[in-house]
Amino acid sequence: MARIVMKFGGTSVADLDRIRNVAQRVKAEADKGNEVAVVVSAMSGATNQLVDWCQKLSPLFDAREYDAVVATGEQVTAGLTAIALQNLGADARSWMGWQIAVETDGQHGKARISSIEADELIERMKQGQIPVVAGFQGIGPDNRVTTLGRGGSDTSAVALAAALKADRCDIYTDVDGVYTTDPRIVPKARKLSKITYEEMLELASVGAKVLQTRSVELAMKEHVRVQVLSSFSDAPGTMVVDEDEVVEQEIVAGIAYSRDEAKVTVRRVPDRPGVAAAIFVPLAEAHINVDMIVQNVSADGTTDMTFTVGKTDLPRATAVLEQARQQIGYAEISTDPNVAKISVVGVGMRSHAGVAGTMFRTLAERGINIQVISTSEIKVSVLVAAEYTELAVRALHTAYELDA
Amino acid sequence: MARIVMKFGGTSVADLDRIRNVAQRVKAEADKGNEVAVVVSAMSGATNQLVDWCQKLSPLFDAREYDAVVATGEQVTAGLTAIALQNLGADARSWMGWQIAVETDGQHGKARISSIEADELIERMKQGQIPVVAGFQGIGPDNRVTTLGRGGSDTSAVALAAALKADRCDIYTDVDGVYTTDPRIVPKARKLSKITYEEMLELASVGAKVLQTRSVELAMKEHVRVQVLSSFSDAPGTMVVDEDEVVEQEIVAGIAYSRDEAKVTVRRVPDRPGVAAAIFVPLAEAHINVDMIVQNVSADGTTDMTFTVGKTDLPRATAVLEQARQQIGYAEISTDPNVAKISVVGVGMRSHAGVAGTMFRTLAERGINIQVISTSEIKVSVLVAAEYTELAVRALHTAYELDA
Repeated sequence: MARIVMKFGGTSVADLDRIRNVAQRVKAEADKGNEVAVVVSAMSGATNQLVDWCQKLSPLFDAREYDAVVATGEQVTAGLTAIALQNLGADARSWMGWQIAVETDGQHGKARISSIEADELIERMKQGQIPVVAGFQGIGPDNRVTTLGRGGSDTSAVALAAALKADRCDIYTDVDGVYTTDPRIVPKARKLSKITYEEMLELASVGAKVLQTRSVELAMKEHVRVQVLSSFSDAPGTMVVDEDEVVEQEIVAGIAYSRDEAKVTVRRVPDRPGVAAAIFVPLAEAHINVDMIVQNVSADGTTDMTFTVGKTDLPRATAVLEQARQQIGYAEISTDPNVAKISVVGVGMRSHAGVAGTMFRTLAERGINIQVISTSEIKVSVLVAAEYTELAVRALHTAYELDA
Repeated sequence: MARIVMKFGGTSVADLDRIRNVAQRVKAEADKGNEVAVVVSAMSGATNQLVDWCQKLSPLFDAREYDAVVATGEQVTAGLTAIALQNLGADARSWMGWQIAVETDGQHGKARISSIEADELIERMKQGQIPVVAGFQGIGPDNRVTTLGRGGSDTSAVALAAALKADRCDIYTDVDGVYTTDPRIVPKARKLSKITYEEMLELASVGAKVLQTRSVELAMKEHVRVQVLSSFSDAPGTMVVDEDEVVEQEIVAGIAYSRDEAKVTVRRVPDRPGVAAAIFVPLAEAHINVDMIVQNVSADGTTDMTFTVGKTDLPRATAVLEQARQQIGYAEISTDPNVAKISVVGVGMRSHAGVAGTMFRTLAERGINIQVISTSEIKVSVLVAAEYTELAVRALHTAYELDA
C-alpha cells in the first residue's frame, strides 16, 4: 500500500469524458489499496478565457482580482472530478486552497506556497476518502485567494505530496514521459525511464515543457519522487528521482531546444569596470530575465556585450537600454529574434570530459555557426540561427548515441 | 448621502461590455457621494453550463460538490466587476461568501442565510471602497461553499442591504420595473411606481418572475426598501415598500398568470374525516407542493377532490397517489396540464368588497369557465383552461381599470 498524489493537467480534464477517465484512473489506484489524493488543473482553455477577460477589462488589472477570477477554473474541475468519483462509488470530496489551507506568501498571480495543513486530509485518506484538490491556488495572509502562476498545479501537487509524505507524485499530462528530445523533431527519441531532478530542471528550463520548473525544484528539495505519465495511455512514464537512484547513468540524458529567446548585442561599450552592471541592473529592475551572456574580447578600449532575453521581453529590453544609453555609453544596439538555444543536458558530464567538444564538432560538421555559448555543471547550451534548430537537435541526438 | 446596495442579474453582466456598463452605473452612484455595495449574479448562461456538467456526470450529484462548482459563476463576475470598477478609477474589491462571511444553514443547493458579518464592509465603505459581493453563495457550518438556490442573488442583495442597514436595495434586471401585468400580453400594462411587499409576494409567486419570492419575504421582514429597475435604461423603476408608504392605493395592483401548474382530480373519494390527510400527507412527504385545493360537495357518501401541483411534479404526484390508492380508496385520478392560474392582486381588497365578483363576472362575460377558485386576503386566483390565458388577463386588466 502506498500513498500517492495524482495530478491531472488541463488536457486530461478538458471535457466530461476526460474527467470520467480521470475518475476511473484514480479509482483504480484506490482499489489497489492505495491512499490517493488528486490535484486537478482547470479544463484546458478555461484559464485562457478567464485571463483574457481580465486583460480586456483592464490591461493593468488588479492581481488580487485576477486571482479571484482565474482560480475558479480549478474549483470547477475539483468539484466535477469529485462528482465523477462519487459516481463510481468512491468516497471523494473537493478542496479549495483556502479550505485546506494551502498558505502562500500572498504574491498575487505568482504566489509561493509556504505551508499546507495536511492533517485533516491524511486523516480522511486513512478512512478511504479521496481528496480532490484544486491546483494552482492557495490563500494569502490577507485571506484572499492567490494563484501560483501558469503551470502552478504541478507545484501544488508536489507540495501536497511533500505535506502528505506521499510515496509518489504522479503527474498525468498529454505526453507519456520525458524524452531524450522532442519526438516531433527526432522520431527516434527515446522515453527515459528515469531522470534526475537536476537534469529535469535543465530540460524544463530550456524548453521541454513537461513539468513546471518550480515543481521540480520543490521535488528535489523535498525528495518527492515524481512520475510523469500520460492520462491517455497505460504506458509507464518517467520517474524523476535523486541522482543516486539512477544506476546506469547516461552521460547525456537529453537534447533540449528553445525558440523563446532573442539575442541582444550592445556594441562598442567602454571596456571598464562597472559596465556590465550598467547594462544588467536596469534590465533586472525592469524584471527582465537575462539568460546567456557573452562579452567579446576588448579592442580599442571598447567591447561588445551579447545576451539573450525572452522574446516577449525584447521590446521592453531595448527601451530600457535606450533609456540608459548615456550611463552605458554604447555605440548601438542590435537585436535578433531569429535564434534558437540548443542544450545538451546530463549529470554524467560531471565525470566525463569531452561532452562540449562533441557538441561543437557535431555542429561545425553541419556548418552551423555558434553565436553564444554558455555552460553549467550538467549542461552545455549554444545559440544558433533558428533555421538550424531541427538539424542541430537531430545531429546532436545521434552524436550522443541517444537514437532508439 | 445614502447607503445603497446595487444588484445586477445575469443578463446585466452577460459579457464584458455589460460589465463595463454595470461599473459605470455603480461609479455614477458612488460619485454622487453615496456609499455603494454591489451584488452580482453569474454571467447569463454560466450557471446553466455548470449545472449541466454536474448533472451529466451524475444525475444524483452531491449537492456539496454542485455548490463548489456552481458558485464559481458569481466569483468570476465579482472579480471582473471589481476590475472594471478599478479601471474607472474606483476603489473596489471582490468578496466571496466565505470571505465576508455570509453564514448559511448549510442546506447545500438551497441554503438560507443565517447571518452576514458586515462590520468590515461598512468600515471599508465609509472609506470609499466599493465591495463587489458574489451573490447566490455563502458558507455552511462545515466551512464548505453553499448556494442559495436559483435566483438566490436577489436574496443575497436584500440580506446584505439589511446587514449593512442600507437605505435602498436596487435590483437591476432586464425589465424596468413591476407592471400591472405582463406587457407581452397586454401592451397597455402600466409600470407601477410603488408596490407593497405583500402584493409583490403574490405577484412573484404567481408568475411575474421579477424578484425571487424569498428575497421579497426577507425585504418585508427586514424593512428593506427594494427598487426594481433596468440596467439597460435610465427610467425610474418600481419601489417595493411597506404598505404605509403607498399613499394612493389602487384596489388592484396587478393581474398575474401562471401556466406552470397542472390540475389533478381524485374522483369518488369516501367523504369521511381524514381523507384529505390521506391524499395530501403522502404528497407532502414526497416534497410535492400542492397549491389550489377544492373539495366538491358530497354525493352518495363520496366526493371529488381537485388541486394543482407544479407541472414538473405531475408524474411524481400521480405515482404517489396510485401507490396510496388503497389507503385513500378513490375510484380514479384524472389530470389536466392545460390549465392556467389567473390572479388578481391588491392590498386594497382588504377594504374593498366586490373585487372577486368583478373577476367572476368579467370572465363569465367572455365565456371563460372557472375550474377552481382560491382566495387570500389580498388575492383572488382562478384556474381556467390554458387557451384562455391571454383573453382572461386582458379582460381583467381592463375591468380593474389598469389600462394605461
